[in-house]
Amino acid sequence: MGSTARVRLDLAYDGTDFAGWQAQPDRDTVQGRIEAAVGRLYRQAPGQRTPVIGAGRTDAGVHAEGQVAHFDAPAAIPPAGIQAGLNALLPDAIRILAAAEAAPDFHARFRATGKTYRYHLLTEAVVSPLRSRYAWPVGDGLSRGAMEEGAAALAGRHDFRAFFAAPPGEEPETPVRNVFTAHFVEAGNELVFEVTAEGFLRYMVRRMVGTLVAIGRGQLPPERVAEMLRDPGASGPRFRAPAAGLRLYRVHYGAPGRC
Amino acid sequence: MGSTARVRLDLAYDGTDFAGWQAQPDRDTVQGRIEAAVGRLYRQAPGQRTPVIGAGRTDAGVHAEGQVAHFDAPAAIPPAGIQAGLNALLPDAIRILAAAEAAPDFHARFRATGKTYRYHLLTEAVVSPLRSRYAWPVGDGLSRGAMEEGAAALAGRHDFRAFFAAPPGEEPETPVRNVFTAHFVEAGNELVFEVTAEGFLRYMVRRMVGTLVAIGRGQLPPERVAEMLRDPGASGPRFRAPAAGLRLYRVHYGAPGRC
Repeated sequence: MGSTARVRLDLAYDGTDFAGWQAQPDRDTVQGRIEAAVGRLYRQAPGQRTPVIGAGRTDAGVHAEGQVAHFDAPAAIPPAGIQAGLNALLPDAIRILAAAEAAPDFHARFRATGKTYRYHLLTEAVVSPLRSRYAWPVGDGLSRGAMEEGAAALAGRHDFRAFFAAPPGEEPETPVRNVFTAHFVEAGNELVFEVTAEGFLRYMVRRMVGTLVAIGRGQLPPERVAEMLRDPGASGPRFRAPAAGLRLYRVHYGAPGRC
Repeated sequence: MGSTARVRLDLAYDGTDFAGWQAQPDRDTVQGRIEAAVGRLYRQAPGQRTPVIGAGRTDAGVHAEGQVAHFDAPAAIPPAGIQAGLNALLPDAIRILAAAEAAPDFHARFRATGKTYRYHLLTEAVVSPLRSRYAWPVGDGLSRGAMEEGAAALAGRHDFRAFFAAPPGEEPETPVRNVFTAHFVEAGNELVFEVTAEGFLRYMVRRMVGTLVAIGRGQLPPERVAEMLRDPGASGPRFRAPAAGLRLYRVHYGAPGRC
C-alpha cells in the first residue's frame, strides 16, 4: 500500500456510551475514538489529525452493525495490520470488522448510494434484561397489521418534513428523500423495522418508528402516515422512538436503487 | 392470597454490574435489590427484612434467564400486583418474569431437582460489540470435534474436585455431583455449552468451559477431561472461563434426573 493510499473501514459499535459518531470537543464520540486510534497507529504528532469520514453520522446512543468509513493513510501499513492495530487501540465497544485498500476516489459518504437502518422492537409484556440493551421494549398488544399498513406508506419519494427535527440553522437543502423499502421483518423473537433509503433526515427513522408504534397502540390511525407525507406542514402529535433500538445496518455502494 | 402465602418468583437479570446473587453488606447484589424492593412493596419498617431465597447463588457478573426464588408474603397482594410492583421498584437489569402463589412447602433451592446453565461462546475472528456483552469471544479456529469429545466425558456421577475452587473453609461436604447432560448446541450464530446437573460446585461450569476451550485450542487433549475426573487430585493447568458468558438458564422441579 502506498503512503497515500485511501483505506476503507467496515465497523460496528455499541453506541450506548458515546455522544454519537461525529467528533465534538470534550465529548466521547466514535469518530473521535477512531481518529485518536489512527493517530497512535501511525505515530502522528499530537497536533496532527487524520480525518476519518463516516458514511452515516449516527446520533448519541445509536448503534452500528455495518458503518463504513475512510481515511488517507499517512504511511504504508498492510490492511490486516490496520485492522489488528486499530482493534488493539480501540475500546471493545468499537470493532473494525474489515480494513481494505480503496480506490483513490472512494468516499464513504458521497459514494454511498443508500443506507439501511434497522430498529429493534421487543413485543413481550415483560422483557428479559439480557435482550433490552439494543431494542425498545414496547409491550404486547400492538396491532401488527396496522403497523405494516403504516410502514408500507413510507416507501417512495416524499417530503419527509413531518418525520424530521433539527436545531434551527441546521435544516437540509430539501426535506425530500427517496425511500426504497420500509417494512417489518422478524429476527429471532424481535420485531425489526427495516428501512432503506438514498439518504435520511435527522431523527427520520426514530420518528418513523415512533409513529408506527403509536399506530400499533391505536393512538393514530394507519392512514396518518400518508397524511403526514401529503401535508407535511400540518400540526399534530409527534412521536420519536428511543435511540437504543436503532442501528445503522448496511451502507450500499451499488447502483442507486439497487441495494 | 392469605397474609402468610409463599410466593414463587421467576426472574432474569443482567449480572454485569452486580456482585452476584447473594446479599452482602455494602455490595450491590441481586438478592439485596429484590429484598429491598419486597420491603418497599409491602411497606415494611426499615429494620424488617423478608428473606428472598434463590435457587442458584450466581457469582459476580453471571447472568440469569430463568432464576427462581421464593419468599413468604407479609401481606396479601395478588400475584399480578407483586410482579408489576416489584418490576416498578427494581432496576431494568432485573426483571420479574412471573410471580405466583406457591405451595407452603415449596422451596426454591431445596425443592430444585436440577439446574441448567448455558455458556455462550462467540467463534468469529472479530466479534461485533452488539453481541459480546453476554458471551466469551474465543476467536475462530477452535476444534469443535475435540470440544464435543471433552464435553461428552463430563456427563455422569463424578468427583468434580478438579473443576472446583472455593475459598478455604467454604468447601462443600462432598465434591461428587451428578451431571445429567453436557453438550454443545447452536443458538443463533453462537456456540452454547449447556449443562444440566442435580447441583453444581462453585466455578464448576466456568472451569468446565475453560477446559473445553483449552481443548478446542489444542492446549489440552480431549482425554484430559476423563483424566481430571478419574484422578481429581492430580496437578495440572486449570482454566476458568470469564463470568460474562455464563447464565443460569433453567431451574427444574420435576422428578430427579428427568429435567
